[in-house]
Amino acid sequence: MERKFIQRAIELARYGMDKNEGGPFGCVIVKNGNIIAEGNNRVISKNDPTAHAEIVAIRKACKELGSFQLTGCEIYTSCEPCPMCLGAIYWARPSRIYYAATREDAAKAGFDDEFIYKEIVIPPGDRKIPMKQLERSSAKNLFSEWIKKDNKTSY
Amino acid sequence: MERKFIQRAIELARYGMDKNEGGPFGCVIVKNGNIIAEGNNRVISKNDPTAHAEIVAIRKACKELGSFQLTGCEIYTSCEPCPMCLGAIYWARPSRIYYAATREDAAKAGFDDEFIYKEIVIPPGDRKIPMKQLERSSAKNLFSEWIKKDNKTSY
Repeated sequence: MERKFIQRAIELARYGMDKNEGGPFGCVIVKNGNIIAEGNNRVISKNDPTAHAEIVAIRKACKELGSFQLTGCEIYTSCEPCPMCLGAIYWARPSRIYYAATREDAAKAGFDDEFIYKEIVIPPGDRKIPMKQLERSSAKNLFSEWIKKDNKTSY
Repeated sequence: MERKFIQRAIELARYGMDKNEGGPFGCVIVKNGNIIAEGNNRVISKNDPTAHAEIVAIRKACKELGSFQLTGCEIYTSCEPCPMCLGAIYWARPSRIYYAATREDAAKAGFDDEFIYKEIVIPPGDRKIPMKQLERSSAKNLFSEWIKKDNKTSY
């Protein structure tokens, strides 16, 4: 079963590349042995830098389940997730991830995954995209209100 | 101007929290001194774990510009971006990021940002969400095809 699902993810990667929708990346999300969502990279066709295969599939799966959580689901992706997609996966909280190619394989094909992994551990002020902090106290006040808020849904 | 834009991001954070659309996070994207897109966290109202303020705003800004790149844009966000959003920002390649609260402030309010930053640097096999590699060679073959592909758009 594992091989069948990862092969489907790779098939989707090929489909998206051949259709010029984006890079060669595909993803399927499985629950109880069934595929509940599929995705391929659509950065080019959608003009959307967030339309990576995993993000596309996660959004579809959550719509399918009517939930912002992928509890009990497995994610099969044709390549090790980039930091954006790994972050999305952590927010969705599936039970397991299967991947085929590595971030180094992606880097050799010209994708920035490995570069972004390196930037993410650098202190904000030292990154290639400059980051500057301001107005921290106003934003912190909002968090204090959130903590005290009665009718909130945590995620 | 910087303060005006970050205050608008914080205002959007408050709006989303008050409307129960999601956590208290807001973002604006600015080009040539004008706001071209705004977003607030909508994880709850959209059942979408990827609907963080920055992702919402990046998708809108790219639609507005008809491009998958935010060249020459500045991102103002009410909180230091989580790894998902920082990854999305790197893929969109704006020129600068301004943020108000920190990841530690977010963690104290119950959000997983800091936890995900810690997980991302751990080797895949040792993470809290287990990761397993299989079928690497099939996926690597796709990358070789991508490298040789004539009519491709790189991103």
